[in-house]
Amino acid sequence: MNLETITFKNNTLSIIDQQKLPEHFTYWALSDIDDVEKSIKNLHVRGAPAIGIVAAYGLYIHAAQLHQQKQLTDEAFMRGADRLKNVRPTAINLQWAVKQMVNVYQSLRRSGDEKLLSALKKQASSIHKDDKQRCNSIGDYGKNLIHDGFSILTHCNAGILATGGMGTALAPVYKAAEENKSIHVYVDETRPVGQGARLTYWELAQNGVDATLITDNMAASLMQQKKIDLVLVGADRVVKNGDVANKIGTYALAVLAHYHQIPFYVCAPLSTFDNATEKGDEIIIEMRDGREILNHWNINSKLQYKTYNPAFDITPNNLISGIVTEEGIKFNHSNHLNI
Amino acid sequence: MNLETITFKNNTLSIIDQQKLPEHFTYWALSDIDDVEKSIKNLHVRGAPAIGIVAAYGLYIHAAQLHQQKQLTDEAFMRGADRLKNVRPTAINLQWAVKQMVNVYQSLRRSGDEKLLSALKKQASSIHKDDKQRCNSIGDYGKNLIHDGFSILTHCNAGILATGGMGTALAPVYKAAEENKSIHVYVDETRPVGQGARLTYWELAQNGVDATLITDNMAASLMQQKKIDLVLVGADRVVKNGDVANKIGTYALAVLAHYHQIPFYVCAPLSTFDNATEKGDEIIIEMRDGREILNHWNINSKLQYKTYNPAFDITPNNLISGIVTEEGIKFNHSNHLNI
Repeated sequence: MNLETITFKNNTLSIIDQQKLPEHFTYWALSDIDDVEKSIKNLHVRGAPAIGIVAAYGLYIHAAQLHQQKQLTDEAFMRGADRLKNVRPTAINLQWAVKQMVNVYQSLRRSGDEKLLSALKKQASSIHKDDKQRCNSIGDYGKNLIHDGFSILTHCNAGILATGGMGTALAPVYKAAEENKSIHVYVDETRPVGQGARLTYWELAQNGVDATLITDNMAASLMQQKKIDLVLVGADRVVKNGDVANKIGTYALAVLAHYHQIPFYVCAPLSTFDNATEKGDEIIIEMRDGREILNHWNINSKLQYKTYNPAFDITPNNLISGIVTEEGIKFNHSNHLNI
Repeated sequence: MNLETITFKNNTLSIIDQQKLPEHFTYWALSDIDDVEKSIKNLHVRGAPAIGIVAAYGLYIHAAQLHQQKQLTDEAFMRGADRLKNVRPTAINLQWAVKQMVNVYQSLRRSGDEKLLSALKKQASSIHKDDKQRCNSIGDYGKNLIHDGFSILTHCNAGILATGGMGTALAPVYKAAEENKSIHVYVDETRPVGQGARLTYWELAQNGVDATLITDNMAASLMQQKKIDLVLVGADRVVKNGDVANKIGTYALAVLAHYHQIPFYVCAPLSTFDNATEKGDEIIIEMRDGREILNHWNINSKLQYKTYNPAFDITPNNLISGIVTEEGIKFNHSNHLNI
């Protein structure tokens, strides 16, 4: 568990470049707000908590560079905040983290640049440390869902690589493994971007957790064969009624788990909760370029394929057994299950 | 509808090389039984009816070549039959077509090579023509399931490229389009081999049918949004109780369609029916090399990923609204649907 997805040392913000995994494990030092924006937009860093943390550090770096250029004005800072807040629309953590930074900025902007910059840096660092602790607590609450001998299905990457700590959906897995429970994880490859194939399998292997990679369309057959005991996924946003936006394919798994009476838990820190939105269908779903699908198949542009490529889907709360947070399990429906 | 997946002209058997689609549309002339075996094993031709037809022609070619080499013995012919019968285990059509050829061989092997070869050629050709007619009839029965304005979801490729005719699951689509019904097809890319992305979308486009490509894990979200009116898939084997083996991912769609009360029909000729097997769980499922999954993600062999890669899954009959055959709809459960 020595993997650090995001580091901030000697005033340098670095991320594991997730577009290069699993073939190459390298860090990318983000030199300015352009790099930060690009790294989030093009999925070099992804995962709701992680992009929040990177945006927070990114805003501090931006403010420090504006200060050096003697251009640290309200307008310039807020323009940076708006840019980062809107890079990706679905994960609420990005907006949440930017808001924390803006709050610090607004309360200290009249106290001198030095004090202001120091407070911004401290705030970003505290969002980072905080997330590490939140992951830890999610792991502690979630590990009780995992019994010895369990096979767990997960989708996308809600692990170390998605957070500032040990992950959300994978935190209970790591905690259960620490307790020497015998566990196995089935990893959905997670089309189109392959976060399961490229990231989740890789980080589980780095941490010695036994795993098997499958394509997304194989999960149902494993459930039919009673080879899945529990489904754990992360979240990009949890709204007031408990509906969840998460990586495309999550809703399918929730329906399949429901049909097969398999517990289905979402793991998410409270920074992922959006209490200003009532229901899931109000969440804006990010639509991405269809080339993400087509690039895999040597489909050249002459053929003019029409595609539909939403990054997320909405799982209604009635299909969710519970949401594991750093303060315990919310929306606990486990009594709905005949198991 | 001028596309011919399999041609047999001037004693030459050719197939559209489906491993090269959609980038390159070329035919491969199969020169001997080795080519035939390789073309089926490595998915240059696939689809239950199509591989049956190719195996039948392949056995004729084999017999003709054995005759030329003065080696047409019972043992040599049967060795060829056994080879082709066992290239892929799940689709019953392969075994069925080989059996037709063996029956002809056995009834005429004492009548002289000339008569025997002529009968084998005629049998292969009749299996091919027969399949064309079966597809046509499936289209006629199935088109009534498609109303004007329907959006249809399909998985894998059960079209022209999978048969000797206009397809199984896609035959009703083509027939409805001929009647000028306004229809739209959502095409699952169908991981890991991408028959939907590479083949189905391509052949629909060739025939002017409006289509959208999605990844397999997006189907559920479309159903949730009420954007799917009907699911049509093919089959590799239908057993006595109506359980169906088809491309991995089919079972997931059946559960999802059931949950969303969307009609789910399987389209298959009677040559796909295996009445010697009682239930789906008795069907042997072909397991394929995990590289089919890994190759997409630049995952080199050093990383030693563990994978699970079944080519098919089993859909129990209770999740199937009906099976559209050339003799009408079997196992009709359409009254189960509250629609």
